[in-house]
Amino acid sequence: MHFTTYLQIHALIEEQIASYRFGTTPATLYDPIHYFMSLGGKRLRPVLVMMSNDLFGGKPQQAVHTALAVEVFHNFTLVHDDIMDKAELRRGKPTVHTKWNETVAILSGDLMMIKAIELLSQSEPAVFPQLLKVFNAAAIGVCEGQQLDMDFELREKVSVDEYIHMITLKTAVLLGASLQLGAITAGASEHDAALMYEFGKNIGIAFQIQDDLLDTFGDSASVGKTIGGDIAANKKTLLMVEARNRANEQELKELNALLQSTETVSKISGTINLFNRLDIRSICEKHKENYLKVAYEKLDSVSVSQERKSLLVSSAMELMNRIS
Amino acid sequence: MHFTTYLQIHALIEEQIASYRFGTTPATLYDPIHYFMSLGGKRLRPVLVMMSNDLFGGKPQQAVHTALAVEVFHNFTLVHDDIMDKAELRRGKPTVHTKWNETVAILSGDLMMIKAIELLSQSEPAVFPQLLKVFNAAAIGVCEGQQLDMDFELREKVSVDEYIHMITLKTAVLLGASLQLGAITAGASEHDAALMYEFGKNIGIAFQIQDDLLDTFGDSASVGKTIGGDIAANKKTLLMVEARNRANEQELKELNALLQSTETVSKISGTINLFNRLDIRSICEKHKENYLKVAYEKLDSVSVSQERKSLLVSSAMELMNRIS
Repeated sequence: MHFTTYLQIHALIEEQIASYRFGTTPATLYDPIHYFMSLGGKRLRPVLVMMSNDLFGGKPQQAVHTALAVEVFHNFTLVHDDIMDKAELRRGKPTVHTKWNETVAILSGDLMMIKAIELLSQSEPAVFPQLLKVFNAAAIGVCEGQQLDMDFELREKVSVDEYIHMITLKTAVLLGASLQLGAITAGASEHDAALMYEFGKNIGIAFQIQDDLLDTFGDSASVGKTIGGDIAANKKTLLMVEARNRANEQELKELNALLQSTETVSKISGTINLFNRLDIRSICEKHKENYLKVAYEKLDSVSVSQERKSLLVSSAMELMNRIS
Repeated sequence: MHFTTYLQIHALIEEQIASYRFGTTPATLYDPIHYFMSLGGKRLRPVLVMMSNDLFGGKPQQAVHTALAVEVFHNFTLVHDDIMDKAELRRGKPTVHTKWNETVAILSGDLMMIKAIELLSQSEPAVFPQLLKVFNAAAIGVCEGQQLDMDFELREKVSVDEYIHMITLKTAVLLGASLQLGAITAGASEHDAALMYEFGKNIGIAFQIQDDLLDTFGDSASVGKTIGGDIAANKKTLLMVEARNRANEQELKELNALLQSTETVSKISGTINLFNRLDIRSICEKHKENYLKVAYEKLDSVSVSQERKSLLVSSAMELMNRIS
């Protein structure tokens, strides 16, 4: 039996998370872990592991520990990110450092990282070394990407290549790794597993760019959040990076003035106006199309039937439509 | 060739640490790691790995990645502990969160944990799954012990068993695991490796108790720090735990008054006086002797010559004389 719907896989993942006991004592350490893991969400990464495993004919039980490991790792990074960002809410609920305290958030995050490795080590011994290699490389990438993101916030000028490198590490690498891990658990060839990684990585970059585009040029009803939030918060998006790199001296002055403005409404409209003059929307759309194109080329080369691939594509595309 | 001196092993470990490149970019992430790892110290845990590996006839190169992994893990816990304790100095140098900032300290600590797993995975594939199991169990123990320690600081009454359980997890388990890991890298039997763990764990508990005793009853010249520091800081040591559990109602009142006192000199002398009336010193000495006895029984059962064991004993005893 193959999974046919995202909902089936999501239900399985939620069931696994709900029944998994990370530990009991001290409760001050394990309660935050169970709390945070139960906050829900799309479970994008573990679903990608399961979908890829299914694509190559693996049974769900071959991949389920690996899928959980990836989700626990991702949640560990969120617990620590929330401390660093001083975020009070996550999915509408108090973050760990808000509900408990920062010390508990650091330590329970640390333990989640160790538990992720423990979960991964419960996979088939024959594939475990390969899984660990992919997992570690992605984990290192996520940390590097997070630090680059913080570094870039302090820098005035960031090149397009640098920005793409940052989002690749911070987001795309773990999405690629999720698909690669699922291929490995199913016993796919090294070549196919590597292609799945490239597919996921490139899709991830494309959707991250789309996230940036939607925040500025989206339809607020369908995006589900206020337009211009990134502009208001002076966030370094690909749009801003491209604008800064393409602006002439006069436009740069204008951009810097807008960045310092405290009048949110005119700041947003003024910045969008400048973006339009610099053709930023279509430039970024082109970036996105290029990464999508590469992604599909990689997937095309994977040695399974097009019919089964199309299932993955439709679900994955829908799922990754907004990365969160 | 077998290692004969601690200095030889220590030099090898320092050399390995100095030449190991954790990574390069972003420098804001890797500089703190190289900085912290270079701060020196006794390198107790990696030395124990190497000594145990040597005891069972292993070559240094069989154990060196495992030894480094343990040291990197230990340093990761120190980087995060320093944040939680708001400590400004470590070995007389600024801590990571002081020299950089808290965000950098959280993230570079996280990366060190991942790098520790990566280092461990560079060991012989045949023994790696066994190494990882021991490593993970110890890592989980360290986190649990750290949280228990913080929980206990907020509780008035802690039983002797609870206190011993806490120091076992926080300190002794990783010392035991270091010896067990070295036995595994050398290809020792599972039974011998488990005995080495028990030896190290019990020695670790004994020396932690000795640390507590020395802080209150030691000779300040040989201890190298001021006597009574734990009392002044209201630290929950085994001495304090035993005193609280053995005090009658009147003595408990006296103890609580001393705990609230801000007159350091009279607070220390008054507490020592109460400890003496309750016979705390000899009670704690007995605890220590019991753990040492168990430790030596475990080591006695290990199937290598007494001559080679005595080398490990003399070095390990000297080294662990103060755990730090």
